[in-house]
Amino acid sequence: MDIHDTGSLRIEIIGIPGLPEVEPGDDVARMIVDAAARSGAGIMDRDVIVVAHKIISKAEGRLVRASDVVPSEFARNLARSLGKAPEEVEVILRESRAIVRYRRGILITENRSGLVMANSGVDRSNVRGDYILLLPVDPDASARAMRDRIGELTGKEVSVVISDTMGRPIREGHVDVAVGISGIAPFRDYRGRVDGFGRELRVTNIAQVDEIASAAELVMGKVRRVPVAIVRGYEYERSEEGSSGLVLPEDRDMFR
Amino acid sequence: MDIHDTGSLRIEIIGIPGLPEVEPGDDVARMIVDAAARSGAGIMDRDVIVVAHKIISKAEGRLVRASDVVPSEFARNLARSLGKAPEEVEVILRESRAIVRYRRGILITENRSGLVMANSGVDRSNVRGDYILLLPVDPDASARAMRDRIGELTGKEVSVVISDTMGRPIREGHVDVAVGISGIAPFRDYRGRVDGFGRELRVTNIAQVDEIASAAELVMGKVRRVPVAIVRGYEYERSEEGSSGLVLPEDRDMFR
Repeated sequence: MDIHDTGSLRIEIIGIPGLPEVEPGDDVARMIVDAAARSGAGIMDRDVIVVAHKIISKAEGRLVRASDVVPSEFARNLARSLGKAPEEVEVILRESRAIVRYRRGILITENRSGLVMANSGVDRSNVRGDYILLLPVDPDASARAMRDRIGELTGKEVSVVISDTMGRPIREGHVDVAVGISGIAPFRDYRGRVDGFGRELRVTNIAQVDEIASAAELVMGKVRRVPVAIVRGYEYERSEEGSSGLVLPEDRDMFR
Repeated sequence: MDIHDTGSLRIEIIGIPGLPEVEPGDDVARMIVDAAARSGAGIMDRDVIVVAHKIISKAEGRLVRASDVVPSEFARNLARSLGKAPEEVEVILRESRAIVRYRRGILITENRSGLVMANSGVDRSNVRGDYILLLPVDPDASARAMRDRIGELTGKEVSVVISDTMGRPIREGHVDVAVGISGIAPFRDYRGRVDGFGRELRVTNIAQVDEIASAAELVMGKVRRVPVAIVRGYEYERSEEGSSGLVLPEDRDMFR
């Protein structure tokens, strides 16, 4: 019997408001613990703490000032085809190891940690003035550090999911997915198990951390400042596996 | 000020167990209302009722007996390349208006209601013996009927999301998405609005019903029988728009 079969039938998604604007060097874990205490939710064992990557990136100083960037000729040419600012394209290329697709207005890349997404996660929204925000260098390591620090501050064993908002092939609109994880298995794997009629379930391998990121987005929103949500009551397998398995290898991806 | 900015910071995802096995012609809405009452959750105004498509399909008699299917020559040839049963491929083709991609073991199609997914949603797991289960003919109409019937039985204004489990390009693993909706807008649209720094948010258009389906999956699981979940406390725009906008048109899909 697997843990999920006996799992809770009630999960709470709790948005944590009231975090101050994050600056480079800030102890975001402490900010989250304090804000969770003020909101009355607190932190409990086995909570999954979902954190929008932006506040992690800001704390890690992953900001580039557009006016400090000198675009290469390649970046300038690509920027013209895309209709984007050359400085932004230069920064995206520095964060990428491959260009997967591009078209006017859209640049899909594989970033340095292997994520396939628009603009290698480089973003200018919700950032002050002239700055461009990058993803954390190693989002799994950031998730791990966040988890350890929350453990230190509270004595609670939590998991951390760092989320980002992504567009998707085939389906319209954006959803939040996990770009870094620590403490929770990325998948809930049913392969080889049997359904209610004794038939083997052949392919179902649920990307539970992506579903958790999506669930958390429902209370986080983009406009009001709620960059953290607690997913409480979800029973999951603990794991030290990172998020790299969440990117489908190119040779198994029928759409690449 | 949009409804989401003032929205609740606490959402509950409540799995509803105890539904009997569904047979063709069953009043699934009544089964759900009864099971929700027994579980203590009940049904409340503005609940989003997420229903696994399988129980809707079963109630609508969308079952085909494999031994009654005579595969065409084309289906037999394709089945050989795919390594699938010819009867199953025949049924998939009847449900499809186009083959999008195929490879050994995997057949991606556009089904008759425009969904792009593996096998046009045709599935043999969690189905008795020799039967093959199809998606509802018109999942939005099924969602609408479910919503109306729940309203009739309870006097509550709910929304309905019919969910299915799908694989994804680029990302490993399956997540649940919405294949039919009624009463809730498919997207939460931020385009043209401004972020916390006064910069316009250009592209964010959250596929909220897909996120809701994913959130619900966290309590539904595949093995234990929990085909229904209530998402409670989520504030959303009511809408009579269906789910068709959730499929990216081919000319805007860089991966087709």
